[in-house]
Amino acid sequence: MFGKNLENLKKKGALIHNITNYVTVNDVANVLLACGASPIMADEPSDAVEITEICQGLNINIGTLNSRTIETMYLTAEKASQLKHILVLDPVGVGASNLRTTTVLNLIRKVNFDVIKGNISEIKVLVNGGRNVHGVDAGFEDRVTYKNLNKHLEFLKNYAKEVGSIVVVTGEIDIVCDDKKAFVITNGRSEMGKVTGTGCQLSAMITAFLVANSENKLEATAAAVATMGVAGEIGWKNMQVGDGNSTYQNRIIDAIFNMSGEDLDLGVKYEIR
Amino acid sequence: MFGKNLENLKKKGALIHNITNYVTVNDVANVLLACGASPIMADEPSDAVEITEICQGLNINIGTLNSRTIETMYLTAEKASQLKHILVLDPVGVGASNLRTTTVLNLIRKVNFDVIKGNISEIKVLVNGGRNVHGVDAGFEDRVTYKNLNKHLEFLKNYAKEVGSIVVVTGEIDIVCDDKKAFVITNGRSEMGKVTGTGCQLSAMITAFLVANSENKLEATAAAVATMGVAGEIGWKNMQVGDGNSTYQNRIIDAIFNMSGEDLDLGVKYEIR
Amino acid sequence: MFGKNLENLKKKGALIHNITNYVTVNDVANVLLACGASPIMADEPSDAVEITEICQGLNINIGTLNSRTIETMYLTAEKASQLKHILVLDPVGVGASNLRTTTVLNLIRKVNFDVIKGNISEIKVLVNGGRNVHGVDAGFEDRVTYKNLNKHLEFLKNYAKEVGSIVVVTGEIDIVCDDKKAFVITNGRSEMGKVTGTGCQLSAMITAFLVANSENKLEATAAAVATMGVAGEIGWKNMQVGDGNSTYQNRIIDAIFNMSGEDLDLGVKYEIR
Repeated sequence: MFGKNLENLKKKGALIHNITNYVTVNDVANVLLACGASPIMADEPSDAVEITEICQGLNINIGTLNSRTIETMYLTAEKASQLKHILVLDPVGVGASNLRTTTVLNLIRKVNFDVIKGNISEIKVLVNGGRNVHGVDAGFEDRVTYKNLNKHLEFLKNYAKEVGSIVVVTGEIDIVCDDKKAFVITNGRSEMGKVTGTGCQLSAMITAFLVANSENKLEATAAAVATMGVAGEIGWKNMQVGDGNSTYQNRIIDAIFNMSGEDLDLGVKYEIR
Repeated sequence: MFGKNLENLKKKGALIHNITNYVTVNDVANVLLACGASPIMADEPSDAVEITEICQGLNINIGTLNSRTIETMYLTAEKASQLKHILVLDPVGVGASNLRTTTVLNLIRKVNFDVIKGNISEIKVLVNGGRNVHGVDAGFEDRVTYKNLNKHLEFLKNYAKEVGSIVVVTGEIDIVCDDKKAFVITNGRSEMGKVTGTGCQLSAMITAFLVANSENKLEATAAAVATMGVAGEIGWKNMQVGDGNSTYQNRIIDAIFNMSGEDLDLGVKYEIR
Repeated sequence: MFGKNLENLKKKGALIHNITNYVTVNDVANVLLACGASPIMADEPSDAVEITEICQGLNINIGTLNSRTIETMYLTAEKASQLKHILVLDPVGVGASNLRTTTVLNLIRKVNFDVIKGNISEIKVLVNGGRNVHGVDAGFEDRVTYKNLNKHLEFLKNYAKEVGSIVVVTGEIDIVCDDKKAFVITNGRSEMGKVTGTGCQLSAMITAFLVANSENKLEATAAAVATMGVAGEIGWKNMQVGDGNSTYQNRIIDAIFNMSGEDLDLGVKYEIR
């Protein structure tokens, strides 16, 4: 099922505008190329609005936001919204500062994102407010486990309803849900947490998957999440003696570059809840 | 013939100032180190002008331009021009926004670039104006083929004459020309288009090749283009099972690091037109 | 001895705020993850001060400084100082412009850095003033050798005393000293100079090592320097046919990811002077 979403993207392509952080931007570009899409990055207001116009999707990631790029985020989000482009938000480190929280809440108020993707600590800040002291990682005490899964699903479906977006929470267990239905995906490896930027890459991939599969956005989002998880497993299998987190970073993107729809369907582990 | 240009650079070195985009900047630094040069990046106006002074070449790439870096581009281009340093321009995505087009045309008006390097869609915008809706890639309909090669060579030689620069167009067929003579180079692999930043790397390398071989700039530029193409072929030969576009990115730079002048002369495929 | 510092860091973790350059930032993030720490990057003033609060260490690297990030450096340095966090400074390219020199001297005047790390040309600018025309590399004539080692040790211990910081000079011979004691470390390989960003990575690692081993900062700093040097040797041993500087960049970080305290103790070559 997910496989055809990946095949569609590799066939059709998708031009994705990314306003993202400078830490992981190179991998965001390469992962988009790996899955069949094309990246553009532009973050000066007057430049970026015109770039948004020629793209089909906009991926906003607040990882290293500043006053100039925040203005760009507002302007391009509005332009993409007017043009009915795919709109994805990655609220990296929201709650770690007032600027991050205010920016994200304003963006969500201004436009309707197709997808909001974060770790569980970030999504909790969006719902409950408060300070996130974990930086860009989820807090251990917030972690989604099978024990507390039902409670989390209810919480996330409620938030999806309130905000009118698909909500994605990544972690040991990944959740992709709208207000009614959730995909619970258990691919991936814990070592992916030792590679910078897999989360940023995922937001970009989600944007591209939705552009190429806009008729079923929930499934397309789950397919993107599954692709990243399966790539983490294939990439790890390809590790050689002496390889570590830096080579693993390449091997994950390589796995997406080489992945067929069939590979994805064979590798994915999920249930619907 | 090209080999001695590479050998010269590996022997003499070259300190290159790059005002470039944050997407591919790390690879720009590594490719300069791979071919024997040294990179510096500085884009705050008052800092950058002094950095330009201590370098021998300036590589301007507008990939993620903003109002601050545009001011820096103008100031450093003028300083480099006064000092008779090598000056290279990569008009990434020109035509995709008014800001990009205006900046590039102003830069070309203000100073004389030794080399202007783009894909064919970008160079057509420089000549004919208009909107480039392909983002950072060339449009399929613009593509240089053997069928339309002569028409393109005439077009590019005319532009080289008008602007007083060497013009480089990269694609399946690479063209390096001034107003009279063109190198038509057919190295490289189509998979290089799935790696972010090979174009940005090439502009930086051209700058370094010209610093080390300033007595014959056309040949030095062609040598840099050939080096990138041959590296793409060697890098692909070194690919292992499971490798994809991300590892290929490293293997291309690795190939340049390991390439001798003889390797380059043995690998290059070109004709003069 | 150094091994337990690495083990402590891998056990305890450390949240490190990096205000660093956009050239090498991705590797800075990955090397922190490799050694057991977690990275955050934030450089907008109002955002960054709050990020500093939730971290345990602040790593300031002026590689691509601009007027906005300079303001952020001042504000976060003061905040980190108030909170008695670990504070490390990497004055990349100081002396290459007035802006760099002024910024670094102001930072050193305002707060007490635990560690100041540079190449020998950079440290000489801090002591003697003057123009550094070598860009981000050390000048050949400045080089620390066994012949001039004693003179350099005296010079560096004096500077450490004057400034009240641990001073680190990297090169063929690495020196880590306070006003009384110096570790002279001879690990590493000359090919590391062909990889962009190993110096930037080291500053980040030093910050993390000091957070996890704050009871003996001189030893912890030396342990971080030794870790980078030993990783350079292990990474080089893992090089395959066709590998070059780009793959070497990964293999160095991979080696840190895989390194145990025992590996470090077995590999380190140092003397105390």
